[in-house]
Amino acid sequence: MSVEEILKTHPQPAAYDLAVLARCIDECGRCMATCTICADACLAEDDVSDLVRCIRLCLDCSDFCATTMRVLARQTEAEATTQRAALDACIAACQASAAECDRHAQHHEHCRLCAEECRRCESACKDLLS
Amino acid sequence: MSVEEILKTHPQPAAYDLAVLARCIDECGRCMATCTICADACLAEDDVSDLVRCIRLCLDCSDFCATTMRVLARQTEAEATTQRAALDACIAACQASAAECDRHAQHHEHCRLCAEECRRCESACKDLLS
Amino acid sequence: MSVEEILKTHPQPAAYDLAVLARCIDECGRCMATCTICADACLAEDDVSDLVRCIRLCLDCSDFCATTMRVLARQTEAEATTQRAALDACIAACQASAAECDRHAQHHEHCRLCAEECRRCESACKDLLS
Amino acid sequence: MSVEEILKTHPQPAAYDLAVLARCIDECGRCMATCTICADACLAEDDVSDLVRCIRLCLDCSDFCATTMRVLARQTEAEATTQRAALDACIAACQASAAECDRHAQHHEHCRLCAEECRRCESACKDLLS
Repeated sequence: MSVEEILKTHPQPAAYDLAVLARCIDECGRCMATCTICADACLAEDDVSDLVRCIRLCLDCSDFCATTMRVLARQTEAEATTQRAALDACIAACQASAAECDRHAQHHEHCRLCAEECRRCESACKDLLS
Repeated sequence: MSVEEILKTHPQPAAYDLAVLARCIDECGRCMATCTICADACLAEDDVSDLVRCIRLCLDCSDFCATTMRVLARQTEAEATTQRAALDACIAACQASAAECDRHAQHHEHCRLCAEECRRCESACKDLLS
Repeated sequence: MSVEEILKTHPQPAAYDLAVLARCIDECGRCMATCTICADACLAEDDVSDLVRCIRLCLDCSDFCATTMRVLARQTEAEATTQRAALDACIAACQASAAECDRHAQHHEHCRLCAEECRRCESACKDLLS
Repeated sequence: MSVEEILKTHPQPAAYDLAVLARCIDECGRCMATCTICADACLAEDDVSDLVRCIRLCLDCSDFCATTMRVLARQTEAEATTQRAALDACIAACQASAAECDRHAQHHEHCRLCAEECRRCESACKDLLS
């Protein structure tokens, strides 16, 4: 079953194209998990003291993704202002996390994968904004 | 990219089989989104007053899934007691939500799909416990 | 014990005045709880179908407050962009929720109290931004 | 305004004594914030590599507290099984976090304060269970 499938059964029309909305919800969920794993993997590395900023920004990003996923998953009486604010905040968090993960991508494969996922989530949020 | 792929790059061995762990994290994320959508779709139905218990249990389930996803995504210094407590609580919430969604499955397709997803998440949590 | 007391023990200086920061974290926590209670109380009212928008916006507000509380509670390697984005999103959610709760304040005391708390949280976020 | 005050305006009777319920919701919110701050303060310490387990357990505890706060804040159609599962999980997380914070209490004041708060939250959850 996919998120898009259940979105199609909602009694009210969404403010967004359902495929684009579903992709954004999916990526927020995946990015929430990925950032949690990357922060945890950083904690387990020998050079954890060099990864403090990375851990911190991944924790932020995971929190923003969780909230954005839920706010977007709610399409009943959707409020344009808060939906947009959630997307803006999520994009800012994904960008900050991706930029920092990039700096460690050569030494830590989880940082490379996490940067990729953050950029995919950022892109899905931007698609919904436009 | 999959959750399993990034789990494989973690510097410490997980307490679980990675494929089973990844499936549980994935299902928690999907169930978190699905329950949020079902609660929201219920709110938009004409018979919302008959769906109060369904909304309530879906909100609970979404919260438990979010926490369980994160607690399991962290495998550094994993504490068996809390990992098990998270899984137990998530299973209880999935069961309650699935049972109530089932009661509305004939009238509301989102409830039918949500019950299915809750059972899949419950099953993924149980696989990890065993 | 207060949030301000533990903030004072942090090894790095925060980007904000600690008393203002502590008040914002406290209000986010209180608003997260209050909005959850108001949404739940609305669900239990006889006129739940008139309260759908109120429930929805309270759920949003609770999610934004949770994320904003955590992002602000983290002052290590704080990123101005994401901290500001969190505050902006939280202010938007508090305003939307307060405005809708106001409309039901005469009939439902929980809506009146919730509108008050949302405005207090909005004000605490604005104090931190300035 | 207090959480107890808004709980009193709920149209349905709660399954718990309101003062005990309000205290538990309050402590979950405070413990959620305190554990986030302690994990972040640990990240900023010179001996961060000795604090990895502490960070991890504080992150867990913050997540459990957030979910428990919300599940308890919802008293409409409350399901005894999931409310109890949330409390059990929260107690387990608070105990694990307090025990680890205790080990660092002499060197880090935030760990000492966090252990105290975790124990207060554990106690509030136990009061609600009994």
